[in-house]
Amino acid sequence: MKQFLSVKDAPDVNALIQSALLYKSSPMRDEDLGRGKRMGLLFLNPSLRTRLSTQVAANNLGLEVVVFNVGQEGWALEFADGAVMNGSTVEHVKDAAPVLGQYFDLLGIRTFPGLTDRSADYSEHIIKQFVKYSGVPVVSLESATLHPLQSLTDLLTMTETFKEKRKPKVVLTWAPHVKALPQCVANSFAEWVNAWDQSEFVITHPEGYELDGSFSGDARIEYDQAKALQGADYVYVKNWSSYSQYGKILPESGNWMMNLAKLGKARAMHCLPVRRNVELSDEVLDSRQSLVTAQAANRVWAAQAVLSEILKSMNA
Amino acid sequence: MKQFLSVKDAPDVNALIQSALLYKSSPMRDEDLGRGKRMGLLFLNPSLRTRLSTQVAANNLGLEVVVFNVGQEGWALEFADGAVMNGSTVEHVKDAAPVLGQYFDLLGIRTFPGLTDRSADYSEHIIKQFVKYSGVPVVSLESATLHPLQSLTDLLTMTETFKEKRKPKVVLTWAPHVKALPQCVANSFAEWVNAWDQSEFVITHPEGYELDGSFSGDARIEYDQAKALQGADYVYVKNWSSYSQYGKILPESGNWMMNLAKLGKARAMHCLPVRRNVELSDEVLDSRQSLVTAQAANRVWAAQAVLSEILKSMNA
Amino acid sequence: MKQFLSVKDAPDVNALIQSALLYKSSPMRDEDLGRGKRMGLLFLNPSLRTRLSTQVAANNLGLEVVVFNVGQEGWALEFADGAVMNGSTVEHVKDAAPVLGQYFDLLGIRTFPGLTDRSADYSEHIIKQFVKYSGVPVVSLESATLHPLQSLTDLLTMTETFKEKRKPKVVLTWAPHVKALPQCVANSFAEWVNAWDQSEFVITHPEGYELDGSFSGDARIEYDQAKALQGADYVYVKNWSSYSQYGKILPESGNWMMNLAKLGKARAMHCLPVRRNVELSDEVLDSRQSLVTAQAANRVWAAQAVLSEILKSMNA
Repeated sequence: MKQFLSVKDAPDVNALIQSALLYKSSPMRDEDLGRGKRMGLLFLNPSLRTRLSTQVAANNLGLEVVVFNVGQEGWALEFADGAVMNGSTVEHVKDAAPVLGQYFDLLGIRTFPGLTDRSADYSEHIIKQFVKYSGVPVVSLESATLHPLQSLTDLLTMTETFKEKRKPKVVLTWAPHVKALPQCVANSFAEWVNAWDQSEFVITHPEGYELDGSFSGDARIEYDQAKALQGADYVYVKNWSSYSQYGKILPESGNWMMNLAKLGKARAMHCLPVRRNVELSDEVLDSRQSLVTAQAANRVWAAQAVLSEILKSMNA
Repeated sequence: MKQFLSVKDAPDVNALIQSALLYKSSPMRDEDLGRGKRMGLLFLNPSLRTRLSTQVAANNLGLEVVVFNVGQEGWALEFADGAVMNGSTVEHVKDAAPVLGQYFDLLGIRTFPGLTDRSADYSEHIIKQFVKYSGVPVVSLESATLHPLQSLTDLLTMTETFKEKRKPKVVLTWAPHVKALPQCVANSFAEWVNAWDQSEFVITHPEGYELDGSFSGDARIEYDQAKALQGADYVYVKNWSSYSQYGKILPESGNWMMNLAKLGKARAMHCLPVRRNVELSDEVLDSRQSLVTAQAANRVWAAQAVLSEILKSMNA
Repeated sequence: MKQFLSVKDAPDVNALIQSALLYKSSPMRDEDLGRGKRMGLLFLNPSLRTRLSTQVAANNLGLEVVVFNVGQEGWALEFADGAVMNGSTVEHVKDAAPVLGQYFDLLGIRTFPGLTDRSADYSEHIIKQFVKYSGVPVVSLESATLHPLQSLTDLLTMTETFKEKRKPKVVLTWAPHVKALPQCVANSFAEWVNAWDQSEFVITHPEGYELDGSFSGDARIEYDQAKALQGADYVYVKNWSSYSQYGKILPESGNWMMNLAKLGKARAMHCLPVRRNVELSDEVLDSRQSLVTAQAANRVWAAQAVLSEILKSMNA
């Protein structure tokens, strides 16, 4: 694996899940794989779980890690080609990225969508410029439209908790929020569940919140949340802003917050951070049906499996 | 020792002081005690000495340390039970703490009082929620009402500098400040000096600045600073806001700033940071009677003694 | 070498360049030199390259590194002697620095000029107080008037790229910018090129931007940029604010931005971050004549050579 920006970079989703489970049972099994190599973790927006879990995973593989909060510790970067930089941006990615590629053997980068210019966001021009100009392998720690480390964690968590011989029913349901959020977690979850191809997959949301079809693929879209949730094994709850009316929060109809009555016997998933009693009720999050801590804990093993594959490619 | 939130967690204050002195003479004597374990240091408000000294102490014990400045690197946490999180808080401690407990073997946490709701602050509901929900040992790096690592350092500094066969006279004196500060350093110093029980202990402050009696205990309270300071061996200078008129700065009477004339032959102590020529005069801080750098330097050994006890409990 | 604040601390500039080149060819050759020692990196203003390259260099020498962003992670420091600290500064350098000297074996410090009080800035009172009060070796990571690690990198980059038997012609040219910047990079480059004494050295800038003569020394000053650039081998492009009308941006005459036509066959240098199409044109930065990434990459080896000399002095 030469980079990790989306499920397309993973040659075999199931093999990656199995590798993550192996690291979970034996975290230090490859403690020398990254020895002598340095990984830079760049955050263009804040992170708790992603930063800490990736740092732990990298350390487990013997990598030296340096965290850099761009913007807080550094300054605003410019991404526009040909920009006359007489404004507030201090350095162009064309100049910063090659230097990072000199200091680090691999880079983890978190970028963010502006949520105003859809084609810019969906072209992933920010993280792609780091790929282009740094010259070293790049791992997405969440980008404008995708969050692949989260999605791998999510599949891992379903894999280790589902014990039946049939395919689980997986429902991705939109939930309310107070802010306009990216579509990246939902896009990425859909893309990975589709590539995994081990479930009956349904996406439910109010009309107007349809995801980009290149991610939702053949998933069944159901506007009636109650109907979608029938017989669900896993309910992934997540807010996202509109893709068609890009970045907008639409006037919603009905009550989309997840609660125990709606959840039935399914297990509840969320990537965190979660707005309690807005996206999910306390009773769901505090119940045994909640997998949110398990998902977050699994972030370490997902990251370790990904970094391991990249290190193996580098050493090959 | 399963946690370190107050002197009540220390089974034997003198043994802890002796352990700290042993680490001071031989910092690397237990360099493998924490090997393979990770400690997260979470700061909900800023820190210089506490962060650096705890990081050094943890490294001396072989622990891997990750520092996380919540709020600057992360986001605002919610602590209210049942909150409908449609405001500015992004994540509930109920969701964040268990994840931290999955990533780290032990946590150091600095919290802060709001200084408006005394019963909330004095219930220590913030740090206690981290204890409750993280599931791993928690070391206070200062909490709403206490600062036990500082107090252990203070006792250590008196122990190693007092050479006479009698009990020293220790005076805790209030000093002016420009901001309303927590009572935590004063509360904690009083609690530890009382538990230590190796001194004649006097507390002096203007009327209205009485500490919570559960911390000041049997200490002599003396409103006349000059009388309190007579024959003092150690003078601990510290500002705090009022406990009775909670969080308020009262109209003060007289001049409470410490200077050399008042200090006499005593040694001056302060936890730092100090407002020069407001709390203590330059002449005191620049004199040989000042122990402030020694106290700060001893923070490493105090932290190392505490972490060592906790690691031994975890390994037991 | 007991400290590294300017070229005056370097006993032999060429030996330092050669040492850096040796580390470049063999980064881990002294991986145990700093073992058991801790370096604190204090940033009073933001840094990308300096922080990361120094951290990498220190790790290559076995040093343990702790980064501390003062102001963001800590609080405002006071530097005025005798200050009554009833304002916004929270701690005096007299109290903070000795503590840092207790926690760390050596310190790297980045300070900044206020650009209003020239004599204060040019006395380097901030970094000198850290030297005075910390009691440990201090490495400048850029100070009010100098940036010696950058200058060593610059000489290193010219040394390794110049293959002819004659002395190169080196031109330092002023460039436009949108903000008032320090003179430190230009001062330091001039001081080092003069001490190196291996080039024909010309400085060109609009009238009013003359550098302090103690740094520009015997360099030829040429107000006509075109004339200065004739036959140049290396063109160092950099903005600085006025020294005579201290900290001011003067109404400039003519077009001082560097472009390919002006550059001719010379190689272009800049310390980064650079304002594209304000200081230098895209075509220069994107050409093979640009050395900016090479300069930044060499920061690691410059820092490693300096830290190595300081560690050898400490061990001696």
